[in-house]
Amino acid sequence: MLDLRPVGYVIGLLAAIFGATMLFPLFADLWHGNDHWPIFLESSLITTVTGALLALTCAGGVRARLTTQETFLLATGVWSVMPLFGAIPFLLGATEATAVDAIFEAMSGLTTTGSTVFINLEDLPHGLLLWRSMLQWFGGVGIIVVAMVFLPELRVGGMQIFRSEAFDTGGKVLPRAAAIAAHISVIYVGLTLLCHLAYLAVGLDGFQAINHALTTLSTGGFSTSDASFGAFQGAPEYVASVFMVLASLPFVRYVQIMAGQARAFLKDAQVRGFMWTIFGLVAVVTAYRILANGDHAEHAFREGLFNVTSIITGTGYASVDYQLWGGFPVVLFFFIGLIGGCAGSTCCSVKIFRYQILFGSVVRQIRAIHSPNGVFVQHYDGRPVDEALISSVASFFGVFVLALGVISVLLGMTGLDFATAVSGAATAIANIGPGLGSTIGPAGNFAPLNDTAKWILTAAMLLGRLELLVVLVLFLPRFWRV
Amino acid sequence: MLDLRPVGYVIGLLAAIFGATMLFPLFADLWHGNDHWPIFLESSLITTVTGALLALTCAGGVRARLTTQETFLLATGVWSVMPLFGAIPFLLGATEATAVDAIFEAMSGLTTTGSTVFINLEDLPHGLLLWRSMLQWFGGVGIIVVAMVFLPELRVGGMQIFRSEAFDTGGKVLPRAAAIAAHISVIYVGLTLLCHLAYLAVGLDGFQAINHALTTLSTGGFSTSDASFGAFQGAPEYVASVFMVLASLPFVRYVQIMAGQARAFLKDAQVRGFMWTIFGLVAVVTAYRILANGDHAEHAFREGLFNVTSIITGTGYASVDYQLWGGFPVVLFFFIGLIGGCAGSTCCSVKIFRYQILFGSVVRQIRAIHSPNGVFVQHYDGRPVDEALISSVASFFGVFVLALGVISVLLGMTGLDFATAVSGAATAIANIGPGLGSTIGPAGNFAPLNDTAKWILTAAMLLGRLELLVVLVLFLPRFWRV
Ligand SMILES: [K+]
Ligand SMILES: [K+]
Repeated sequence: MLDLRPVGYVIGLLAAIFGATMLFPLFADLWHGNDHWPIFLESSLITTVTGALLALTCAGGVRARLTTQETFLLATGVWSVMPLFGAIPFLLGATEATAVDAIFEAMSGLTTTGSTVFINLEDLPHGLLLWRSMLQWFGGVGIIVVAMVFLPELRVGGMQIFRSEAFDTGGKVLPRAAAIAAHISVIYVGLTLLCHLAYLAVGLDGFQAINHALTTLSTGGFSTSDASFGAFQGAPEYVASVFMVLASLPFVRYVQIMAGQARAFLKDAQVRGFMWTIFGLVAVVTAYRILANGDHAEHAFREGLFNVTSIITGTGYASVDYQLWGGFPVVLFFFIGLIGGCAGSTCCSVKIFRYQILFGSVVRQIRAIHSPNGVFVQHYDGRPVDEALISSVASFFGVFVLALGVISVLLGMTGLDFATAVSGAATAIANIGPGLGSTIGPAGNFAPLNDTAKWILTAAMLLGRLELLVVLVLFLPRFWRV
Repeated sequence: MLDLRPVGYVIGLLAAIFGATMLFPLFADLWHGNDHWPIFLESSLITTVTGALLALTCAGGVRARLTTQETFLLATGVWSVMPLFGAIPFLLGATEATAVDAIFEAMSGLTTTGSTVFINLEDLPHGLLLWRSMLQWFGGVGIIVVAMVFLPELRVGGMQIFRSEAFDTGGKVLPRAAAIAAHISVIYVGLTLLCHLAYLAVGLDGFQAINHALTTLSTGGFSTSDASFGAFQGAPEYVASVFMVLASLPFVRYVQIMAGQARAFLKDAQVRGFMWTIFGLVAVVTAYRILANGDHAEHAFREGLFNVTSIITGTGYASVDYQLWGGFPVVLFFFIGLIGGCAGSTCCSVKIFRYQILFGSVVRQIRAIHSPNGVFVQHYDGRPVDEALISSVASFFGVFVLALGVISVLLGMTGLDFATAVSGAATAIANIGPGLGSTIGPAGNFAPLNDTAKWILTAAMLLGRLELLVVLVLFLPRFWRV
């Protein structure tokens, strides 16, 4: 029999802390004079007590070391259980959400997806808006820890190339996770504060600034109004663009910069590839807006920069409905959403390093079929890339595309049209936020979807956030054998 | 300086023969009393004379052995040059096509894609209709030879696993190609005749039967009326389904069956995977039609069988507009078009064996991340699969998806909407035929597209037909160095 206590203990502990953080939205409601605050007291009590009881029950089985099996269960467990607790304020609160809507919204928060089923956001109590933003912020820091500790160790989808950069604590995963979380938290909090100040400087009020800082650094994309960033056109779009990019770079590099090693950051192949990709895409979109739509230069550049950055980083803020720009941007934005940012950041999707390795592999293949007797060694970031790594990256890519297909077909089965089904699957599995079409597009909302579609999307967000394989491994029969 | 004469010689020779075959549509016009026949005389003379001159000019450089470099040039050269000759009857004839339309149609024919820019097909002279069907039939046999001789030899996209099955003639590519072409032709002609007789038996007239036999065996999908197979509902749909499947199986197995070795056919992992996939998809679509659309059983099964088979084999006949069945079939048919048939047949797209290898690799990856110290060897069709093969297959898959993205974006740039751009790119690169939406969908036509989009699609058909890498290798700077 599998001993689930070590996993239950960590989840219980996290839930207890999670419940305590519900006091922040409680104070936000009190501060703004909303009489909505008691629901956070209830939610907090339920969550903290349940978490504490779980931790106490499991405390007897705690060990310093987690097995591989337990590590997988922990990752999937955290992102399956926390959304249930996170949904409680939506169930009890002013949103009066159904179970599926509450869980969808909490999952969309904790996976940093940012698709929303709530409308008239402006009318929600401050506490609930803050809670949505906090879910994304917690999800963001959580995923950085997972990406820096668990995935390289578990060799998921080629993440093993970042192994040497992970913090070494002698194989003990939990102490390592705590150490990394501490380092990362300092940076994450610092950048969030900087972002908050910058938003204040360009005219957002205090509440808007803190909410958008929380959802920018987590590349989450929840906003405080239905218009998303449409309410903040102009300078705030530049601020958001800068911080969305900062949130998409490998956080380990910031730790190194703090330690005086800026060189590694500047030479990082992932960072360079990502910046050049953004540069190229912004140039193309800006040119298109000027030449095809007759837009004026600053406006074209600003909207191009903001929307390209928002989609490629997977943040998913919308400042305009780019579907009105013509066919080209729509198709382009669909595909750049499948690129994603750097590994080791809050970004999801396929990620830039996998494309770099895939592209290198394709060039090597082409060379090899041209010169069958030649020996071609592929390099990435100065290190040789072996066939095992390529097949690991490629399998990830394959499973990503296959999952995209399966989820699209399932969504189609619930009655969605082609663009909604395919873009809905993509936006969920890549944790972006908006899809395409009139329903779930940048100007739309996920509220009108049927419940089955919402459940499918909820599962897809979880699957995508944990790089698919972490979840799929649980479906291996041998996983459950001791 | 690269000596292009061996390549030019073969292309010239093929063109001369190609020109001679234009006498068939000439006789068809004469037989049916159309005064349209002289255009085929002109086309034939132009093609044969040009081809013969080219062959004579290059005859001095002929060698028994082609280098790898020359082999690539030959494949891309044949499928680039033949469509130019094949377009002549459309330029001169009753279609009075523009250059782009004529070349699009000829490329759609020779790549067995089957997208058409001509409307009111019923009103075209018999000769032109026959010529369209013949283009597909030639393209089909040509691609089997390429898939059996060149691709395994060139190790393109994992095709090297079929190396042992190719006919061994001691490394001399051209004699081998001729030997294989001879074997294959017997089977190809035989199956075409059987298909012709079967179509006659279920009520098609002689001209309809021969045209559809030619485009069924080549999984091409050109028809003789705008309604495509909508004109032949009932028993002809069953006949077409059977022969589309037969055309999608590895032709080397038929050669073996002729030699009394039926065992290899029955044990072939590709054949089994393909048949199970069709079985599963037909069951799902039939059930959907009965349960969701309230269709009656035989009709649901027949339309399910015919349309699933038509799309997965990449034939692209349409008997109904399945876009009227709801969202699910639309999304499903989009993705099953990306599956394709077996390697070594007339089918294009990714092909079933690559999914089998990718799927095996994903399972192996999942096992490996679960048991980091375990050693897992992947098998395919009873043989071990090495990392190099997986990365070869995966690189093909990666380049296929990337090409799909790039072509979609380019099509979007010409002003097409999301569904038209993405499905147009997919249908061209996978050589299927119909796309989605009101313009290029199963009930539509490619005629209304802008010229730029038609050129892009023409290039995409060529790229897809030659498994992408065969064409992309030409863009390698070192390819052109001696
Ligand atoms: K997001
Ligand atoms: K076809």
